[in-house]
Amino acid sequence: MQQLDRLMDFILETDRLKSVYRQTLISDQSRRENSAEHSWHLALMAILFIDQAKDTDLDMLKVVKMLLIHDIVEIDAGDTFAYDTKGHEDKAEREQAAAQRIFGMLPPEYRDEFLSLWEEFEAHESAEARYALALDRLHPMLLNFHTTGAAWKKHGITRDRVLSRNQVIAEGSEKLWEYAQQLVNKAVELGYLDR
Amino acid sequence: MQQLDRLMDFILETDRLKSVYRQTLISDQSRRENSAEHSWHLALMAILFIDQAKDTDLDMLKVVKMLLIHDIVEIDAGDTFAYDTKGHEDKAEREQAAAQRIFGMLPPEYRDEFLSLWEEFEAHESAEARYALALDRLHPMLLNFHTTGAAWKKHGITRDRVLSRNQVIAEGSEKLWEYAQQLVNKAVELGYLDR
Repeated sequence: MQQLDRLMDFILETDRLKSVYRQTLISDQSRRENSAEHSWHLALMAILFIDQAKDTDLDMLKVVKMLLIHDIVEIDAGDTFAYDTKGHEDKAEREQAAAQRIFGMLPPEYRDEFLSLWEEFEAHESAEARYALALDRLHPMLLNFHTTGAAWKKHGITRDRVLSRNQVIAEGSEKLWEYAQQLVNKAVELGYLDR
Repeated sequence: MQQLDRLMDFILETDRLKSVYRQTLISDQSRRENSAEHSWHLALMAILFIDQAKDTDLDMLKVVKMLLIHDIVEIDAGDTFAYDTKGHEDKAEREQAAAQRIFGMLPPEYRDEFLSLWEEFEAHESAEARYALALDRLHPMLLNFHTTGAAWKKHGITRDRVLSRNQVIAEGSEKLWEYAQQLVNKAVELGYLDR
């Protein structure tokens, strides 16, 4: 197959990420957020919050690429809710198979680059990955807060679980982790999140 | 207001782009595409199609930033359908006001950068802008083709209008313009697009 046709096939395949819905509602509370628009929002955050990152001299393009592709595996593996303990048991295996199939549609140089970026993100291996992960964890907290805790309440999530799940934010950005903790405390005060 | 609070407010405001719907359907034909997920898809294309660009040595991060923010003005100005002649009469004015308000929410350095990137994109002023625009025009053609011409048919769009509207693709990428023309011809053959 021609290089261009392979790339177009990949673009069409990834269109399906627009139909993978997360637990978080969008801010007008009209519906759940999908993983494609979530990825867009994270890439935008990556540009704006770079001064908040723990490490300096991050490769911004690498962070943005990582965030644009980090959820593509969900096309096959589905979105696993942050607090779904059972779903997390075989998450890594399901997502590894998805990565091989979907990124495997690409010409070799892009396949290798995307697989490597995705693995680096999953393993929190680099400063770029830790900053990207911090944004990926902060973003749903922000939306949950501004939808009066809709997804937290629906699933009976408590303050301690939110803090324990998301303390990894500190590895990518101490300032954003401080912000996230303040958000959680305010959410408890306002009754958006159970103690 | 603190810098971080301003940035968070901007992120919340831009969440509304997820509720701006375009005429194009997503590939499974279940619903119209929104401008946030469209922007994500274009940024992904920008990375993959860089070898197809007319100019070499493009600043990839600049292209990606441009595409991530290019539709944010639609939060106020709405999406103007490509073939809506009347809507295009005051499009520039509506979008300029939107850019001032929305990017104006940002701290000055980001406000200036985003305004400048958006204006550069709109004016097709640089090689990066012309490549970004080529992708922005090609993407709905690809989705229209793979939804058997749904949006074209709904609005009675003909081959000549598609070609005339989108020939600007050639300024960003001759190869992608060649691909687009082949797609149009095939769409006519298959009855997805009227002659």
